[in-house]
Amino acid sequence: MAGSVHIEDLFSSLGDALVTDPDRMLAYRRDQSLLTEAGMPLALVRARDTDDVVETMKWAHRHGVPVVTRGAGTGLAGAANALDGCIVLSVEKLNKILHIDTAARTATVQPGVINGDLAAAVAEHGLWYVPDPGSRAISTIGGNLATNAGGTCCAKYGVTADHVARIKAVLADGRIIHTGAVTRKNVAGLNLTQLLVGSEGTLAVIVEATMRLRAAPTAASTVVAAFPSTAQAIDAVLAIRDRAEPCLLELMDRTTIAAVNEMTHMGLDESAGALLLIQCDGRDAGAEAQTCAAVCAEVGATEVYDTDDPVEGEEFMQARRVALTALERQGSTLLDDLAVPIPRLPEMLSAIEQIAQKHCLVIGTFGHAADGNLHPTIVFDAADDDHTRRARLAFDEMVAECLALGGSISGEHGIGVLKEPYLERMVGSVERELMSKVKVAFDPTSILNPGRGI
Amino acid sequence: MAGSVHIEDLFSSLGDALVTDPDRMLAYRRDQSLLTEAGMPLALVRARDTDDVVETMKWAHRHGVPVVTRGAGTGLAGAANALDGCIVLSVEKLNKILHIDTAARTATVQPGVINGDLAAAVAEHGLWYVPDPGSRAISTIGGNLATNAGGTCCAKYGVTADHVARIKAVLADGRIIHTGAVTRKNVAGLNLTQLLVGSEGTLAVIVEATMRLRAAPTAASTVVAAFPSTAQAIDAVLAIRDRAEPCLLELMDRTTIAAVNEMTHMGLDESAGALLLIQCDGRDAGAEAQTCAAVCAEVGATEVYDTDDPVEGEEFMQARRVALTALERQGSTLLDDLAVPIPRLPEMLSAIEQIAQKHCLVIGTFGHAADGNLHPTIVFDAADDDHTRRARLAFDEMVAECLALGGSISGEHGIGVLKEPYLERMVGSVERELMSKVKVAFDPTSILNPGRGI
Ligand SMILES: Cc1cc2nc3c(=O)[nH]c(=O)nc-3n(C[C@H](O)[C@H](O)[C@H](O)COP(=O)(O)OP(=O)(O)OC[C@H]3O[C@@H](n4cnc5c(N)ncnc54)[C@H](O)[C@@H]3O)c2cc1C
Ligand SMILES: Cc1cc2nc3c(=O)[nH]c(=O)nc-3n(C[C@H](O)[C@H](O)[C@H](O)COP(=O)(O)OP(=O)(O)OC[C@H]3O[C@@H](n4cnc5c(N)ncnc54)[C@H](O)[C@@H]3O)c2cc1C
Repeated sequence: MAGSVHIEDLFSSLGDALVTDPDRMLAYRRDQSLLTEAGMPLALVRARDTDDVVETMKWAHRHGVPVVTRGAGTGLAGAANALDGCIVLSVEKLNKILHIDTAARTATVQPGVINGDLAAAVAEHGLWYVPDPGSRAISTIGGNLATNAGGTCCAKYGVTADHVARIKAVLADGRIIHTGAVTRKNVAGLNLTQLLVGSEGTLAVIVEATMRLRAAPTAASTVVAAFPSTAQAIDAVLAIRDRAEPCLLELMDRTTIAAVNEMTHMGLDESAGALLLIQCDGRDAGAEAQTCAAVCAEVGATEVYDTDDPVEGEEFMQARRVALTALERQGSTLLDDLAVPIPRLPEMLSAIEQIAQKHCLVIGTFGHAADGNLHPTIVFDAADDDHTRRARLAFDEMVAECLALGGSISGEHGIGVLKEPYLERMVGSVERELMSKVKVAFDPTSILNPGRGI
Repeated sequence: MAGSVHIEDLFSSLGDALVTDPDRMLAYRRDQSLLTEAGMPLALVRARDTDDVVETMKWAHRHGVPVVTRGAGTGLAGAANALDGCIVLSVEKLNKILHIDTAARTATVQPGVINGDLAAAVAEHGLWYVPDPGSRAISTIGGNLATNAGGTCCAKYGVTADHVARIKAVLADGRIIHTGAVTRKNVAGLNLTQLLVGSEGTLAVIVEATMRLRAAPTAASTVVAAFPSTAQAIDAVLAIRDRAEPCLLELMDRTTIAAVNEMTHMGLDESAGALLLIQCDGRDAGAEAQTCAAVCAEVGATEVYDTDDPVEGEEFMQARRVALTALERQGSTLLDDLAVPIPRLPEMLSAIEQIAQKHCLVIGTFGHAADGNLHPTIVFDAADDDHTRRARLAFDEMVAECLALGGSISGEHGIGVLKEPYLERMVGSVERELMSKVKVAFDPTSILNPGRGI
């Protein structure tokens, strides 16, 4: 093998940071997605500093060896899965918060910093790092940037892309670039920063990022509303937009409610077709939440409860947070991540129900209603071939329905391996060709996560 | 000339839309910047539809003729100035609002639609198109996208980039692409949309865009505060961030105040070193404005006035709106557009004052304080060579100072011709090379606004 011949050079510059023991590499072979393929890496690099990243890229570039960059491996699209004969380049040890600038309200971090650690560190300065993916306790800022991770806060405050100022990255050939500016506005040249965001390790290795911070959040007020049907819940979502701007607006369907109850004994209303969880923040949070509660009642909620108590609010949030875990207790899960225009949510939700019925599958749907971003989760038995086949079919059909409704095949989890088969249908062939050419501009020999993301 | 030989083919497909009469082309030779070079076009195309754009690009691609796309020509960086022997491709006649989707809250428009026309049309549906450049009555959505135009609203609601969902564009070779998605979240493939935004006509010709809308704005409350010095005004800007989120926070320095008074006889406080204009909107606008007023008083404002009356608020806004016009009455103006991190504003402002003194120039500075985005405006006599030379020197020195403070050479006006000499210093040589390669991915023969923007 060409790779094995030359790996010695890499060892001489990386020493201990280079791992070739197959057993030790095992934990770095795949992310948290199911039904995605993962190859066997040639070696694992656990970078200790930017130099290690540079050396790895120079070596890989010279030898034409593919490199899969890896943060925490919490991805749900297989984008960090190893390719056969690749280097898995883990940046998890680059986990220092380099600088918190309280005056400029930015934090400069290494890519392996865990999202929640950054949030906690800036909170000590009375500041707020906003993006809050469900994986915030375990995923990295580098991974969040490379996938453009969302979270519940997106309803009001946007996704990871909306909170990045600068990126320092290592190119495929080992050269270093700095993109963007710390200023709030900057239109100098092409927007390389937003090109790197969501590029799933295909353009460059992010080795440092300056993220924007906000003033500490105010206490949130919470509303929980039960609706006879998902359609009525979405009516409420649409009506709320005219009168309030919640910082969180999450949906859970009947199947999810039941799964959460079974796990937590929370006693959520199982007669409901859907539950909305709403939070408002800001100077007028309490009154804004009451407006939302009133709107829910007007459009037909069977039960509406609102509270200014943050502890109680947090308890309700917990119901939403455990949604996936609760469904996972019922079998293997194939988690989808579809986004449609908000007015099309009722159609998407009823299509999901029909697809579940047609294939005799349990599909629990929850998601970020204010963004039109749903996570229909197919529960199946991965040991049963027919069940798995039906799960895959249902997955296909949901994606097709989403596209038919003018939607996106991924709201926040990315393309990776899982969604690659649908990418061209979504973006178009000329557009995909253009994306490939942009990749070539960054990575002329196509060694960075080839075949992924774009 | 190669071009003149072949222009006949283009005439046969475009007919009346093709103009070669030098007199009629004159008005299309340059934008509104001063001291920027403009060449003599080979021809002007006044596109009537997307087909005209496609035909023009195919022809230009075949013959290697440069194409300068033009919206309303209100740009301030020379980015729409003609190149010798180019086609000026005007899209001003593509000015239809194609669809306002009140449920999805989007508007799909042709690129020549005037910003203010779109805002007015959606307001009739109780909706709000947010980006509000000072040129909103005269500039186009296509131009706003191609420059990533800002406005006073950016303080709270972001720039044009933050309000675009999809773009339809014609590539250099005449092929059509669609980028982005109408959904609020979308991470499918590389972010071509944000690459087109701010690309100043170097990547593709925007022929249609779907812009996001918000619920109608609430009435704003206004605060005007006078400070002994610009430094104290910036202290207020920094302190306000902790307690409020104004939707507008504008600064005017002493020179600008005097110029506005001279023109309008508004009687603004000329003893003040700086004036802040603040507006708050939302459910709690009045109280939030009062918080801002209190903060201003705390940090040393000599006069603070606040009002909930929108008419009165609008009168104060008028003072800021006429700032440039007022300075223009005093001579030729060289308008700069620098952005620094907000805490560095005092240093930038004092550097500007020193540079003005050193070169015996009048420089009036106003700008978007909450974004750290200043428009120092050099007033000089363009007929006087020495005066012009000093103006250019001062311009250079301000840019250098901005870079030294970690700033951006353009917050919103773009690079064009005016800022091209500084671009590499700002972004770095590897980064610039990368931008050029990305351009090649879109425009392999470099016919779209060559040498501009990147
Ligand atoms: C329980 C759970 C909840 C989740 N909730 C959410 C959610 O609410 N919203 C959401 O968006 N996602 C969510 N996710 C998905 C996942 O956490 C995110 O995609 C996250 O951003 C991945 O970060 P990571 O560090 O684990 O990256 P990885 O999985 O290691 O990598 C993801 C991709 O990023 C690339 N990458 C990683 N680091 C770098 C770098 N430094 N430079 C260049 N490329 C890099 C990889 O090559 C890969 O393509 C959830 C996952 C789990 C398991
Ligand atoms: C009085 C005044 C006030 C202003 N206030 C502001 C302000 O507050 N904020 C701000 O940001 N700017 C401001 N400007 C600058 C200017 O109005 C903006 O840059 C505006 O976005 C330019 O739009 P336009 O239609 O005039 O574009 P043009 O000047 O015609 O073109 C600008 C650039 O965009 C490209 N372009 C135009 N249309 C297209 C298209 N359809 N496809 C591809 N490329 C295209 C051109 O090639 C050129 O590179 C102001 C200008 C004036 C005169």
